Amino acid sequence: MKLWEKGIATDQKIEQFTVGNDRELDTVLAKYDILGSMAHAKMLAETNLLSQEEANSLCIALNELLLKIENKNFIIENNFEDIHSKIEFLLIEKLGDTGKKIHTARSRNDQVLVDVHLYLKDEIITIKNLIKELFDLLMELADKNKDVLLPGYTHLQVAMPSSFGLWFSAYAESLIDDITMLNAALQVVDQNPLGSAAGYGSSFPIDRTFTTEALGFSTMKHNVVAAQMSRGKSEKIMAFAMSSVAGTLSKLAMDVCLYLSQNFDFIALPAHLTTGSSIMPHKKNPDIFELIRGKSNKIQSLPYELTLLTNNLPSGYHRDFQLLKEGLFPAIENLKSCLEMTHYAIKDIKVKENILNDEKYKYSFTVDTINQMVVSGIPFRDAYKMVADQIENGTFTVPESTNHTHEGSINNLCLEEIKKKMEFSF
Amino acid sequence: MKLWEKGIATDQKIEQFTVGNDRELDTVLAKYDILGSMAHAKMLAETNLLSQEEANSLCIALNELLLKIENKNFIIENNFEDIHSKIEFLLIEKLGDTGKKIHTARSRNDQVLVDVHLYLKDEIITIKNLIKELFDLLMELADKNKDVLLPGYTHLQVAMPSSFGLWFSAYAESLIDDITMLNAALQVVDQNPLGSAAGYGSSFPIDRTFTTEALGFSTMKHNVVAAQMSRGKSEKIMAFAMSSVAGTLSKLAMDVCLYLSQNFDFIALPAHLTTGSSIMPHKKNPDIFELIRGKSNKIQSLPYELTLLTNNLPSGYHRDFQLLKEGLFPAIENLKSCLEMTHYAIKDIKVKENILNDEKYKYSFTVDTINQMVVSGIPFRDAYKMVADQIENGTFTVPESTNHTHEGSINNLCLEEIKKKMEFSF
Amino acid sequence: MKLWEKGIATDQKIEQFTVGNDRELDTVLAKYDILGSMAHAKMLAETNLLSQEEANSLCIALNELLLKIENKNFIIENNFEDIHSKIEFLLIEKLGDTGKKIHTARSRNDQVLVDVHLYLKDEIITIKNLIKELFDLLMELADKNKDVLLPGYTHLQVAMPSSFGLWFSAYAESLIDDITMLNAALQVVDQNPLGSAAGYGSSFPIDRTFTTEALGFSTMKHNVVAAQMSRGKSEKIMAFAMSSVAGTLSKLAMDVCLYLSQNFDFIALPAHLTTGSSIMPHKKNPDIFELIRGKSNKIQSLPYELTLLTNNLPSGYHRDFQLLKEGLFPAIENLKSCLEMTHYAIKDIKVKENILNDEKYKYSFTVDTINQMVVSGIPFRDAYKMVADQIENGTFTVPESTNHTHEGSINNLCLEEIKKKMEFSF
Amino acid sequence: MKLWEKGIATDQKIEQFTVGNDRELDTVLAKYDILGSMAHAKMLAETNLLSQEEANSLCIALNELLLKIENKNFIIENNFEDIHSKIEFLLIEKLGDTGKKIHTARSRNDQVLVDVHLYLKDEIITIKNLIKELFDLLMELADKNKDVLLPGYTHLQVAMPSSFGLWFSAYAESLIDDITMLNAALQVVDQNPLGSAAGYGSSFPIDRTFTTEALGFSTMKHNVVAAQMSRGKSEKIMAFAMSSVAGTLSKLAMDVCLYLSQNFDFIALPAHLTTGSSIMPHKKNPDIFELIRGKSNKIQSLPYELTLLTNNLPSGYHRDFQLLKEGLFPAIENLKSCLEMTHYAIKDIKVKENILNDEKYKYSFTVDTINQMVVSGIPFRDAYKMVADQIENGTFTVPESTNHTHEGSINNLCLEEIKKKMEFSF
Repeated sequence: MKLWEKGIATDQKIEQFTVGNDRELDTVLAKYDILGSMAHAKMLAETNLLSQEEANSLCIALNELLLKIENKNFIIENNFEDIHSKIEFLLIEKLGDTGKKIHTARSRNDQVLVDVHLYLKDEIITIKNLIKELFDLLMELADKNKDVLLPGYTHLQVAMPSSFGLWFSAYAESLIDDITMLNAALQVVDQNPLGSAAGYGSSFPIDRTFTTEALGFSTMKHNVVAAQMSRGKSEKIMAFAMSSVAGTLSKLAMDVCLYLSQNFDFIALPAHLTTGSSIMPHKKNPDIFELIRGKSNKIQSLPYELTLLTNNLPSGYHRDFQLLKEGLFPAIENLKSCLEMTHYAIKDIKVKENILNDEKYKYSFTVDTINQMVVSGIPFRDAYKMVADQIENGTFTVPESTNHTHEGSINNLCLEEIKKKMEFSF
Repeated sequence: MKLWEKGIATDQKIEQFTVGNDRELDTVLAKYDILGSMAHAKMLAETNLLSQEEANSLCIALNELLLKIENKNFIIENNFEDIHSKIEFLLIEKLGDTGKKIHTARSRNDQVLVDVHLYLKDEIITIKNLIKELFDLLMELADKNKDVLLPGYTHLQVAMPSSFGLWFSAYAESLIDDITMLNAALQVVDQNPLGSAAGYGSSFPIDRTFTTEALGFSTMKHNVVAAQMSRGKSEKIMAFAMSSVAGTLSKLAMDVCLYLSQNFDFIALPAHLTTGSSIMPHKKNPDIFELIRGKSNKIQSLPYELTLLTNNLPSGYHRDFQLLKEGLFPAIENLKSCLEMTHYAIKDIKVKENILNDEKYKYSFTVDTINQMVVSGIPFRDAYKMVADQIENGTFTVPESTNHTHEGSINNLCLEEIKKKMEFSF
Repeated sequence: MKLWEKGIATDQKIEQFTVGNDRELDTVLAKYDILGSMAHAKMLAETNLLSQEEANSLCIALNELLLKIENKNFIIENNFEDIHSKIEFLLIEKLGDTGKKIHTARSRNDQVLVDVHLYLKDEIITIKNLIKELFDLLMELADKNKDVLLPGYTHLQVAMPSSFGLWFSAYAESLIDDITMLNAALQVVDQNPLGSAAGYGSSFPIDRTFTTEALGFSTMKHNVVAAQMSRGKSEKIMAFAMSSVAGTLSKLAMDVCLYLSQNFDFIALPAHLTTGSSIMPHKKNPDIFELIRGKSNKIQSLPYELTLLTNNLPSGYHRDFQLLKEGLFPAIENLKSCLEMTHYAIKDIKVKENILNDEKYKYSFTVDTINQMVVSGIPFRDAYKMVADQIENGTFTVPESTNHTHEGSINNLCLEEIKKKMEFSF
Repeated sequence: MKLWEKGIATDQKIEQFTVGNDRELDTVLAKYDILGSMAHAKMLAETNLLSQEEANSLCIALNELLLKIENKNFIIENNFEDIHSKIEFLLIEKLGDTGKKIHTARSRNDQVLVDVHLYLKDEIITIKNLIKELFDLLMELADKNKDVLLPGYTHLQVAMPSSFGLWFSAYAESLIDDITMLNAALQVVDQNPLGSAAGYGSSFPIDRTFTTEALGFSTMKHNVVAAQMSRGKSEKIMAFAMSSVAGTLSKLAMDVCLYLSQNFDFIALPAHLTTGSSIMPHKKNPDIFELIRGKSNKIQSLPYELTLLTNNLPSGYHRDFQLLKEGLFPAIENLKSCLEMTHYAIKDIKVKENILNDEKYKYSFTVDTINQMVVSGIPFRDAYKMVADQIENGTFTVPESTNHTHEGSINNLCLEEIKKKMEFSF
């Protein structure tokens, strides 16, 4: 049943092409469509566009549907083209003319808009919480392994001493920037678009302040054309924030894959976290981290997909926007599972000790040696030249100990300060 | 003069390939490199790594260079590979051994990092101010033209009445979301990376809290590996925020180009804002808006360029990062000029009146008619059916007046509320 | 049943994350996996790695499976992680030790490689045929409407006369370039990778020339490392070719959406090709073309997704490659349906006549007037100035007829030449 | 001097914004603009639109300019907005009215189109030749080092034996696919667009077959609207082909950077190919390969930039197209220098021997061992299990020799076949 059906048979082929996988995608919106409809019904009563009895009947019926949805007892059958027509059908079936009145002063355009905004608000909070859990784990691992040294690389060449303390907490602190991006996305989606109707508002005397409060939005997108323009723009901003998180996870996964290689051998994974090969019995492959990397990289292509879908379209609704959901919704699921799997797998990583004893890392101490010379009064460039000559002549020797004291260095990780920054930014 | 020259002739061809256009790009960083060096020198004195006299001499010499830079009296000659070696050379030339000591406890890696962070901070503030000016203009135009009606489109089909008041202020309100993104970028770059050296910190007892305060950063990127990882990540986040602004400008420019077409004819540009054709004498082309659209679209490809440059590289510095500047710096200039030109050109746009009198827009009033029927008691779906029949039969007539009262609609633009939101978000 | 199972329980959560939707995606590969296995089995017999009887049993069993697959009577259950393990399981179940021997001298890596190459070969041919059908239709419509004039636009401003003949056949000729790209992609995937095993070949004395011929490949990817490197590269090249087609369809759809707008009104769609609005009864929206545009634009983001998945990974297999299928396979289905729907909808487009009679198009004839003056001896720049003055003074008059005779112009469409070019390029 | 100047002062600010860096970019087009103009002049004479004398004067004057251009004795001053107006100005300056007549029956739109097509044709051939040189070098190195073994990796885990012979020639064979893509791009740009004028042809009786032959195009883009649509589309297809090459170079550079790391240590670079660190005297960094990788990755973002510039624009010229040059032209220069530098640097790479003697690679021989067991009659899955057990128990021993005989494997590189394929595809 299509709401706009005007008696002319629409071709089956077109329907399949146009509906796409909306029925499946709309399932995640069902809950928010109910919440939006309840707020809308109450507002219609408040503005006398519905009677209080009508609004009550609608809210009771919607509440029953909400329960079904929460119990996963709700599907969108093939004779409905989307969640909106399905719910309206059920209301009319149950309440007759009263059911028909729910669509007063609104359009499917602003229903989708408000549904997506509510959905994104919830998902951002979930993602932030998953990041916080990963942050806590990384900080814990940094503290636990703060004395285990690693070679630090520049240009993939052995450069200077680093440590597992630095490595774990670097990713933790980096995640704070991703939280900042998610907060910006949250601020953008936390603006009620309901009431924009088809994108140009309504001649009904509706009360958008009422629905803004009822739905828990911090503010509304006042201008109805701006509200309509947030379709596509909100999704892109969400995708930017997600890309930021995904970039961090991808880099961490790349480090892990490299460190697990026999050529680095800095860490090990327990057997249950590796997968084998169909022809090489010795293989213990880090597929899980390769898939975190791959899925995170795929997420990073999302902003370009969404930009291509919407770019150079003039203002006003276009059906192209329907396709925004296809890329965005699964990407959100993927990002959450990448965060969960990173947490799940990183917590069992086994850290190797005494790595820097290997001969190939000895030059990683040259800078410390130079610095010692500088502290004893030799100008840096001269000290640099002397150590360069020692290396050339093979006379360079590794210093007995290392002592990095400044903020954020090996022996002064500033874990408390980083935790405070996370708390402040969260 | 390359700082790392070890006496072996480096091939000319490679030098050209590796230096690229760094000398030109680094010009915008010169000022920030001086500021970073001054803060570094003072900190070295404060921690007794330099004498107070040495620090003073360095700061005086750096201050002189700053003056030259501000007077555009500073170039990076071909025998220097970047801004950092040029400045160090000048300091050594002037101060001898004292000049050499400026590089104590730092690396070019963290010099670039701090330069770029300071530069981006300044540019974000400039961009925000340009947006604010455009916002003010759009709000003024919205107010001035609030009673001039426009057809509103969905699917590029005439849909419902809109207005120039709605149109101008929609873009204004939409720009607030871009401010939110720029604020997030500002928060990300407002963290001092100086002291991370080559990416693993230093064995010198430096004081990063001192330089953080001296350079006016709100906080520091504590973990030195995280500081190094902000290379590429900060640029990407900046590019995301810029893309958000660019997307808004591109859409506005698309609307303008369409509205200027003889087929819409909603607005006109004064002669000095159009360009002609080499073979068609009647042409008055909106090249300026096409180029705003094009340049804005180009900016939207920046995040992808930066992501491709950095993606799947393990942690630690890679020379690839040098190329981040090539895409980012000109894009910042382009974004600023797109904002300026939009402001410049939009302020002289002439708005056409009585557009909706044209026969082809009469159906844009159908929804208002339906709504009136609903207010008089007819259920929406039935009213919808009746008007659909009138259209089918050619009996539909345009209502005499229109009255949209809710928040953000034609007759209630909420300009004050939108201004307050901008002030709150700015 | 995972082939590499070594007795240690692999976590359920990881399995779900790592298997992803491979089972579903692999369904399209099932047929090709069978064909690859049959060729492999025959080759093993030919090189005495299997007995002729064993090979025969395997081929008979594989042929039965092929029949099931063709009858859609084949699924990959949840206890199999992919198509390869499922088929091997069935062979072992039926043939015991002989079944086990099918995996001699191969790896899942080269099974996927050969499956994907065979699949892409088939799909490219299908896509080419769909393009050819659309080309034929467009050429037919061009011929049928060759005398119906249209305004031609530059900068979205009315510029010069065009025609439906030009418009339809322009897209037809443009599709030939897309065929050229598909041919390149076909040449790239038409190279047998089978025998590369895990990417470094095999110590078995296999005969890759045999399987190359048996599978109908024009040549083989000789170097086994190059064969492995074609994973990701072949997919990207396929995506480039698909993007080229999609760009053409997207542009055509944009033109259609614009031409259908009341402000252009150059064409009309029959009712069964439009969709309505839930609140505006007069709307006849071109959703089908908006979705062709949107889906085509989404396809154009595919190369970036695939590039991000594979970029900066060193040579050799990485599990990330599994995710190549997720983006590519549905995009192929989408491209085919966009081609079909474009054909389906464009054939019923109703072309409006006498469009150029409208006053707003009169200046589209200025260039013809100038040219007439030039032919009569006035230098172009002077004629241009005179007509510019006529326009300024309002004295310009439309010429009575127009006569464009050169190759590819309104009155000389060169349809036969374009058809020949298509035949030559196909 | 702008050709379309109509006496109304165009604002300085706008001019700067609109002209951009066209003067610089157009320098590479100068030669082709002359060639196009000469062919155009001859055609005008042939069709009696010019006298033979006029055409001769024009050709002589154009030839003189061509000489200046070839001697780098030609610049576009600030008072010209592009190459086309500069050349026309010079012709008028020299020949008066005859000079004015060169613009008969053409537009700047088709001048740019034909210039870009001629330019791309030349550049594709140059790029193909550079690829061929690199191919030859890689094949030579493969032959020279065919017996030097390397570990082969899957999942970055040591997997099976590989060799420098395989490694070098894998990239060589992979480059053949890039040649295939370039050939497709060549076929697409080898179609004469001249005569399309502003995109809708001309009422002059020009002879496009004449210019097609005079300019050495294999065919023409017949339909003038299709010719205009090739703007943007040709550039995108060129960018796809370039991305394909760049992807190969980037992967090779990544391998080199990894193999140079102390943790792999498979190859060494001579001193003149490395760069140092400003603070770490032991560093010999592979900046050249990092920059090849980075520049190649940047090139891979080009298709996206060009797609964003052109996508969702309806047919017909838009000024946005001017910006296509900004991204494309420097990318072509970068691709050529990446090819040159790869050739330059790879030829001096020093290959390490006896790499596989290291303990950590011993399991790379497990598959050979399993295969030997299989040849002696043990089913593969059972052999796999037995070797897996040996590894578990630490009883696995490395086989004495390895013998891979099939096509494209370590001991049978098929270099001659690969060379033949290149010759066939070139």
